[in-house]
Amino acid sequence: MPLVRIDVLPGRTPEQLRAIADGVHRALIEAIGIPEADRFQVLSQNTQDSLWFDPGYLGIRRTEGVVFVQITMSSGRTLQQKQALFAATARNLSTDPGVRPEDVFVNLVEVAKENWSFGNGIAQYAS
Amino acid sequence: MPLVRIDVLPGRTPEQLRAIADGVHRALIEAIGIPEADRFQVLSQNTQDSLWFDPGYLGIRRTEGVVFVQITMSSGRTLQQKQALFAATARNLSTDPGVRPEDVFVNLVEVAKENWSFGNGIAQYAS
Amino acid sequence: MPLVRIDVLPGRTPEQLRAIADGVHRALIEAIGIPEADRFQVLSQNTQDSLWFDPGYLGIRRTEGVVFVQITMSSGRTLQQKQALFAATARNLSTDPGVRPEDVFVNLVEVAKENWSFGNGIAQYAS
Repeated sequence: MPLVRIDVLPGRTPEQLRAIADGVHRALIEAIGIPEADRFQVLSQNTQDSLWFDPGYLGIRRTEGVVFVQITMSSGRTLQQKQALFAATARNLSTDPGVRPEDVFVNLVEVAKENWSFGNGIAQYAS
Repeated sequence: MPLVRIDVLPGRTPEQLRAIADGVHRALIEAIGIPEADRFQVLSQNTQDSLWFDPGYLGIRRTEGVVFVQITMSSGRTLQQKQALFAATARNLSTDPGVRPEDVFVNLVEVAKENWSFGNGIAQYAS
Repeated sequence: MPLVRIDVLPGRTPEQLRAIADGVHRALIEAIGIPEADRFQVLSQNTQDSLWFDPGYLGIRRTEGVVFVQITMSSGRTLQQKQALFAATARNLSTDPGVRPEDVFVNLVEVAKENWSFGNGIAQYAS
C-alpha cells in the first residue's frame, strides 16, 4: 500500500540507490507491519540545481547526501508506530548504503484505506 | 482541481504516454464529474533502477508496463465514486494504449477544497 | 517542515529556477511564519510531452510558463493563512523571475505534525 517517493542528489551508484529503496521498504515492514510484497516506490535523482535543503534546521547537520522520503500510506498508525518507522528508516539507511542518520528526512501522508487500487480497477482495501 | 502524478518505466512512445494521461483525465470526468478543463498532470518516465513494484502483491500479476497514478483531489467523494474512478482508469488505459488492467496502480490523496489556487494567488474554491 | 514539489516546463535558466524555489520559500515564511531554515524543496523540469495543463480553466489564461507548486505541510493553518500563502507565492514568483500570476498553480496537502522526521530517525514535532 505505501507509495514511496524518494529524492536524492547525484553521486550514488545504482547499488546504493537500490539499498536506500530496500532500507525504506524494510523499515515499513519492521515498524508498521506491511506485507513484504506491498512494495511500490519511485526514486528521483535530482541535481544541485533542483533539490534544496537547509544544512542546519533544528540543529541537525545535513549534507548533500540528504535523502527525502515521502511515504503515502493508510491512516491509523499510532504515534509510536510512526516513531518506530522514522527510527527504522534512519537506521536501515545508515547500515546500508551508509547514509548519515542526520541526512534522512521522512514525511508521512495519510489517506483512507479505500483510496488504493492495486490493479484491475478495484479498491482492494475497501471493506 | 486534481493534480495527477503518473509514473512509468521506459518503453512507451510519446503517443502512448499521452494516451495514458488522456485516459486518467477522462476517468476523472466520467467517474467523479470534474470539468473537462480541470486538467493538471505530470508524468515521469523512470528507469528500471528507480521504480520498484511487486509483481504479485494481492495476487495481481504486474509487469514492467506498470503505471502508478497518484491523484490529489478535494475530499468528499463517496466510496462508490472512488470505485468508479478506479474502474474507469483501468478501463481507459486498457483501451488505449493497451495497459494491462493488472498494471494500473492508483492512489488518491484528499485535501480540503480551500487548498487549491488555480492562478492569480487566489483560492478559487474557498467559499 | 513543508516539503515542496515544483514542476515546470523547459526554458528557464538555473537562476530563474532558483528564483522560483526562493519565492515559494519566502511565501511560506511571509504568509504562515515557517522558520527561514525550514526548507526542503524538489523541482522537476518536465517536457512538453510530460506536463499537461489546461490553458483556460476557471477563465485563467495559462501559458507554458506554468508552475505547479505542491506543498505538503502540517495542518492547522486557517483559510486566511492559506489565502495569504497563495497570494504571496504568486506575487513573489511574479516579481522574480517574472512568472505570470495566472501561471502559478498551488496545491496544499496537510498532514499531522507528528508525520515529520527531520533527521536522526526522530519525530521532532511530536509533542
